[in-house]
Amino acid sequence: MSLLDETLAAIRPPDADAARAAAERLNALTKPPGSLGHLEEAVRRYAAIRRDGGARMGRGAIAVIVADHGVAEEGVSAFPQAVTVEMLRNIAAGGAAISVLARRFGYQLKVIDVGVKTDTSANPFAGVTYRRAGAGTANFARGPAMSSGEARGAIETGIQVARELAASGATLIGIGEMGIANSTSAAAVLAAITGLPPARLVGRGTGLDDAGVRRKIAVVERALEFHRGALTSGESILGAVGGFEIAAMSGVCLAGAALGVPVVVDGFIATAAAAAAERIHPGLFDFLFFSHRSAEGGHGLALEHLRVQPMLDLDMRLGEGTGAALAMNVIESALELFHHMATFESARVSGKLR
Amino acid sequence: MSLLDETLAAIRPPDADAARAAAERLNALTKPPGSLGHLEEAVRRYAAIRRDGGARMGRGAIAVIVADHGVAEEGVSAFPQAVTVEMLRNIAAGGAAISVLARRFGYQLKVIDVGVKTDTSANPFAGVTYRRAGAGTANFARGPAMSSGEARGAIETGIQVARELAASGATLIGIGEMGIANSTSAAAVLAAITGLPPARLVGRGTGLDDAGVRRKIAVVERALEFHRGALTSGESILGAVGGFEIAAMSGVCLAGAALGVPVVVDGFIATAAAAAAERIHPGLFDFLFFSHRSAEGGHGLALEHLRVQPMLDLDMRLGEGTGAALAMNVIESALELFHHMATFESARVSGKLR
Repeated sequence: MSLLDETLAAIRPPDADAARAAAERLNALTKPPGSLGHLEEAVRRYAAIRRDGGARMGRGAIAVIVADHGVAEEGVSAFPQAVTVEMLRNIAAGGAAISVLARRFGYQLKVIDVGVKTDTSANPFAGVTYRRAGAGTANFARGPAMSSGEARGAIETGIQVARELAASGATLIGIGEMGIANSTSAAAVLAAITGLPPARLVGRGTGLDDAGVRRKIAVVERALEFHRGALTSGESILGAVGGFEIAAMSGVCLAGAALGVPVVVDGFIATAAAAAAERIHPGLFDFLFFSHRSAEGGHGLALEHLRVQPMLDLDMRLGEGTGAALAMNVIESALELFHHMATFESARVSGKLR
Repeated sequence: MSLLDETLAAIRPPDADAARAAAERLNALTKPPGSLGHLEEAVRRYAAIRRDGGARMGRGAIAVIVADHGVAEEGVSAFPQAVTVEMLRNIAAGGAAISVLARRFGYQLKVIDVGVKTDTSANPFAGVTYRRAGAGTANFARGPAMSSGEARGAIETGIQVARELAASGATLIGIGEMGIANSTSAAAVLAAITGLPPARLVGRGTGLDDAGVRRKIAVVERALEFHRGALTSGESILGAVGGFEIAAMSGVCLAGAALGVPVVVDGFIATAAAAAAERIHPGLFDFLFFSHRSAEGGHGLALEHLRVQPMLDLDMRLGEGTGAALAMNVIESALELFHHMATFESARVSGKLR
């Protein structure tokens, strides 16, 4: 049995009894019932996914998965491809946005090179885990981004990353990414899955001008036409137009469900990974939190189409897991309220009239 | 010169140079320009209000201001009036939602009794500051909630609270409240200021049923009619249909502007206080952050009408400053990113193409 098949076989529906137990305690706390809104929902969902009515908290972890994209050679990014390896170094060295947020919130930051063009593994950056599938994907404007073996391998790398994080005590995992041109890949994946036209999904990425956006839309449109016969399953979509980091994030989502660890999805790129994972295992969204509505392209539209509600809307479009980190902090705040608020009984507060 | 007049005279427009200096550094950090969205805006506004392009961080503080409302006798709340004093005790003792969040985020929690019906000052609760204006306001369905002297006094109490917090190192102040029936008072204040009909503003508060909501709407409609001649200024509106804690929160908003300390406005009730303060000093909203869109009544509509954007929308309707605390944590996260991210130069990351 492959690691992917084993993972899929281990997924059970979230535990409704645990959600009910958590809801009961929530209603005993000194506040009007339901008045903490989405924070209460977060506690119930966390309890159900963890299969633990006590909703015990462990450690938060963020997996930042980094790779390059052959499609960058089509001129679809405002920044040069070298930025991928430069940001890999910056993230691991503590200078990137996600490094600062992970430190602030006390999250384990796992930085994984799954296929950056410049191979630094012989002289490794401190703090980077190397699980390279190659020196970036192939240009999907001219052929498949990956072989089917590479796609499966990248998904299983994500499964292994989630297993390691869970084994080290993570009970909440955020997924983020870095990779020049990966918003082009994500737009293609989301278009293939939702059926939305590329023109409504493609965005400016790191800062394309209007001409660049038109070029990017044309690249995605042509690629979807070119790969049409291959866009039949979540895995084949990832192989045709995905990225190593996108496939790996899909793997983290699937493994989180199997392990009972809620996964918090970052923005546009991570949503493409989650959507592919849901295509591989329908019902998977029950195990995920969508952190925020990104300002990138048609992210809001894609979320609507996927029928999921983001927790935050801060007009961010950075990636790296920054939106996931902020949402994880909201989820943890909800769990702290759950554990540390007084009950009507313990605080001798009167209940509702009638 | 009264304390209020002195405060109003000290308000200068936010410092545009400080905002520009902050924006310059934001653009040098290793991220696409603008990609942190509202977090970048929060840094620029914080810098402008503090008159400090370096946007240095001090301590966060939350003022939870508590009072009773005579209008409770009209049967406009789902919980008995005794809950105000019980929750005053619970908040100060650490068991309320805001107590948990303030602890989590390291905020100073200042709990102030400005007029709870049950006077506990002779046998004081630990952790409560007593600045009582009386044993609750009068029932504004039958007469003014306060005398003009009481209204002025409550506003000036809020000014003093803000001064003390600023003197003890607070550079960001959240305002929250507790007071049975205060969503009725806030709806009346907001209706008087925005001109919106009470039926579109009044909500379920702590959990009214449909008949209760109809009664609450009728109480507000009759009160606005009864007090029509008196609803001419921010201060007179507070006196006619406001509450001691609402007037005091207005005072905190005004003093924050005078002191260069941004004030973070909680939900429905705190928004009524902010709107009254803006009526007293037009332009005051430039000094405030609106933390979240509450699920209470027409809060979203009122925010639109006031032309302000809330930072979060978590379907919360608890009050106490809980939404403010969550938004303050987002603002502080933005400030940490500002201070601790690497620049393109320091991290040797390539800039934009062309």
